[in-house]
Amino acid sequence: MPNYKLMYFNMRGRAEIIRYIFAYLDIKYEDHRIEEADWPEIKSMQNHQLLVQILQPCSLDSPVFHHKPIILFIQTYMEQHTLPFGKIPVLEVDGLLLHQSLAIARYLTKNTDLAGKTAMEQCQADALVDTLDDFMSCFPWAEKKQEVKNEMFNKLLTREAPHLLQSLGTYLGDKEWFIGNSVTWADFYWDICSTTLLVLKPDLLDSHPSLQTLRKKVQAIPAIAAWIQQRPQTRL
Amino acid sequence: MPNYKLMYFNMRGRAEIIRYIFAYLDIKYEDHRIEEADWPEIKSMQNHQLLVQILQPCSLDSPVFHHKPIILFIQTYMEQHTLPFGKIPVLEVDGLLLHQSLAIARYLTKNTDLAGKTAMEQCQADALVDTLDDFMSCFPWAEKKQEVKNEMFNKLLTREAPHLLQSLGTYLGDKEWFIGNSVTWADFYWDICSTTLLVLKPDLLDSHPSLQTLRKKVQAIPAIAAWIQQRPQTRL
Ligand SMILES: [Mg+2]
Ligand SMILES: [Mg+2]
Repeated sequence: MPNYKLMYFNMRGRAEIIRYIFAYLDIKYEDHRIEEADWPEIKSMQNHQLLVQILQPCSLDSPVFHHKPIILFIQTYMEQHTLPFGKIPVLEVDGLLLHQSLAIARYLTKNTDLAGKTAMEQCQADALVDTLDDFMSCFPWAEKKQEVKNEMFNKLLTREAPHLLQSLGTYLGDKEWFIGNSVTWADFYWDICSTTLLVLKPDLLDSHPSLQTLRKKVQAIPAIAAWIQQRPQTRL
Repeated sequence: MPNYKLMYFNMRGRAEIIRYIFAYLDIKYEDHRIEEADWPEIKSMQNHQLLVQILQPCSLDSPVFHHKPIILFIQTYMEQHTLPFGKIPVLEVDGLLLHQSLAIARYLTKNTDLAGKTAMEQCQADALVDTLDDFMSCFPWAEKKQEVKNEMFNKLLTREAPHLLQSLGTYLGDKEWFIGNSVTWADFYWDICSTTLLVLKPDLLDSHPSLQTLRKKVQAIPAIAAWIQQRPQTRL
């Protein structure tokens, strides 16, 4: 089993789908959480620590520091070994950094039923995950002006969400899970996204009992129930 | 080989990655293009045509139209067999509708080197595609107020794009392709997204020769070159 280290903020956010999959598949990993305030510093610290590692054999007055090709090499090396696109979550797999939460999640589900049992089911799971993600990505999470943010959030939760929920309800129909006849990571993602949407609008699912039932079914899976019980409590 | 029918607007947009993959893998499909102005009507026409199919055996004064369970059944059937989330592109595969462009694209690359040759490479390709897609999704394509739209487009192209291009250049390094040692759909997606970005800002890649070279390499693949030559010319 490879060595896994997940790096993300101390929140569910974009990392929670990865954590659900680790929990369900009973895979050990380091759940490294950083404070949002420390993020800029950690980003540069990472570079710094790497530099220290690379240069450990050199003394500080070594002529290496005046040798341009060496400096260029170090720069390139650092760029290629730090956060690929300056975003988290990232998953370190035996020293190699993988980025993009959904790509990582899909990678971890490979060759398991969580991905969907056939190529067609896998496509359907991918499509549902992207549909949920498209909606979650509409929210201006980083907007600084509180008034603008509130207005956009309000519009998405009251005007846009009902259409998505209607479509999701129709897609689920009277099936037990979104795709095929067993749980996939699309069901996990529904539980994760809707948990956050319910924080923002507690009555969101009042007229969608089947979508609520699906949440309960995901949350009742023993490994997921245990993870929800033990995870750090954060708002988002 | 299944029967494939792709439905999208008469533009490259979100369907072009699917068309590149069909071209490269030499798979026959119907490239069904609709006019944007016709879209709302087509959406409801689809329902109508389906209804006609279902009801063909009935005469118009049949009591079936007064039988509530039948009406409900027809409603449910129609909801489940029309555009899953009311968005295109969709790909019809032997009558089953798949949605979400990237999920469809990934489905078509399955078991081909276009996906990446290992699970790790597949994750890296997925991550690069999502990184490009995240950026393209920031543009307010549907914004009605031309001034607001111009301002956002301008900000993205002049302030945000340089960071992404810098990261992409670093990620590519002196490699021939983004991932592994042969072309993947991530290289295709780079060519497709950058073609559109260059329409919006022709000097965008002037200081990124390696990213330009990668575009040329993709466009020089015989099947892709042939497709670019023959495809309908549209601005986006
Ligand atoms: Mg998407
Ligand atoms: Mg994304």
